[in-house]
Amino acid sequence: MESKLEILKASVRTVPDFPKPGIQFRDITTLLHNPDALQITFDLLVERIQNSGIAPNYVIGIESRGFMFAPTLACALGAGFVPVRKPGKLPAAVHTIEYDLEYGTDRLEVHQDAMPAGSKALVVDDLIATGGTARATANLIDNIGCYVVGFAFVIELRDLGGRSQLPDVPIVTLLEY
Amino acid sequence: MESKLEILKASVRTVPDFPKPGIQFRDITTLLHNPDALQITFDLLVERIQNSGIAPNYVIGIESRGFMFAPTLACALGAGFVPVRKPGKLPAAVHTIEYDLEYGTDRLEVHQDAMPAGSKALVVDDLIATGGTARATANLIDNIGCYVVGFAFVIELRDLGGRSQLPDVPIVTLLEY
Repeated sequence: MESKLEILKASVRTVPDFPKPGIQFRDITTLLHNPDALQITFDLLVERIQNSGIAPNYVIGIESRGFMFAPTLACALGAGFVPVRKPGKLPAAVHTIEYDLEYGTDRLEVHQDAMPAGSKALVVDDLIATGGTARATANLIDNIGCYVVGFAFVIELRDLGGRSQLPDVPIVTLLEY
Repeated sequence: MESKLEILKASVRTVPDFPKPGIQFRDITTLLHNPDALQITFDLLVERIQNSGIAPNYVIGIESRGFMFAPTLACALGAGFVPVRKPGKLPAAVHTIEYDLEYGTDRLEVHQDAMPAGSKALVVDDLIATGGTARATANLIDNIGCYVVGFAFVIELRDLGGRSQLPDVPIVTLLEY
């Protein structure tokens, strides 16, 4: 009998040399378009988040693939959803964080009034690689006086060591490569 | 007693002069971060989609705010989720559509194998204004041999007449301005 995780792993497509030569891109669109795999993904994420003792007031989705998961998780957990976006997308007053990429820097923004100070936040994205984006998001949440109480990713690229970049809170993942 | 729709409308923030002078931007982040409003939004969308007789195989989310709604609706409707994205974001072979903006043109892409030919698709975005993006998405779905069987938007800007740009299928909206 195929396990739920085997169904998920079989539904992720690997696309060679995207977005640049040498990168094996893990494509989740083939998981998302399969109704069974989509439902299993959310069921397992919610189960593991709850089993990890993560009880957030807000679920944070990182633009843009994090948006595909965070609102559904927020509903299931009885929390609110907060987007962390690329510069210039959020209409009201924002806090910004700049962080280093392999070459150059990038920025992320959150609305200043997205969450009351002291709120507990779960940070969600489709995938953790080097962890730079997730760490920057955690720092951004610290900067607005809130607490990151956990992370959830569908896919973890273990060899890139992203987990070691994150604060010491529970990290939920479903598939490892 | 405040109705569910009044709760939603009170939770949308209007930001003047964003993204440019003269535009009254309807900001849904203040709805999304409220757990009750978030849950009501999904409950009402699902109820109205089902009452409209829309029974899709796939729910299409338009980048990037459509991603915040389409996967949750797909799960509730037992359908798959398919993202329609800006150029260069999807890793495998795509179909592309170019469409006119007020000044210049823009493009959207979908994976060629996102849906089998003959599939029924529900197109979802946060807001319909002039309808250009939703119409382009519908044309893109036609081009890959599938059928648009409905549209769902949280917000409709009635004065901009976007509804008249769309094919003759049910259109679900929650809030009008």
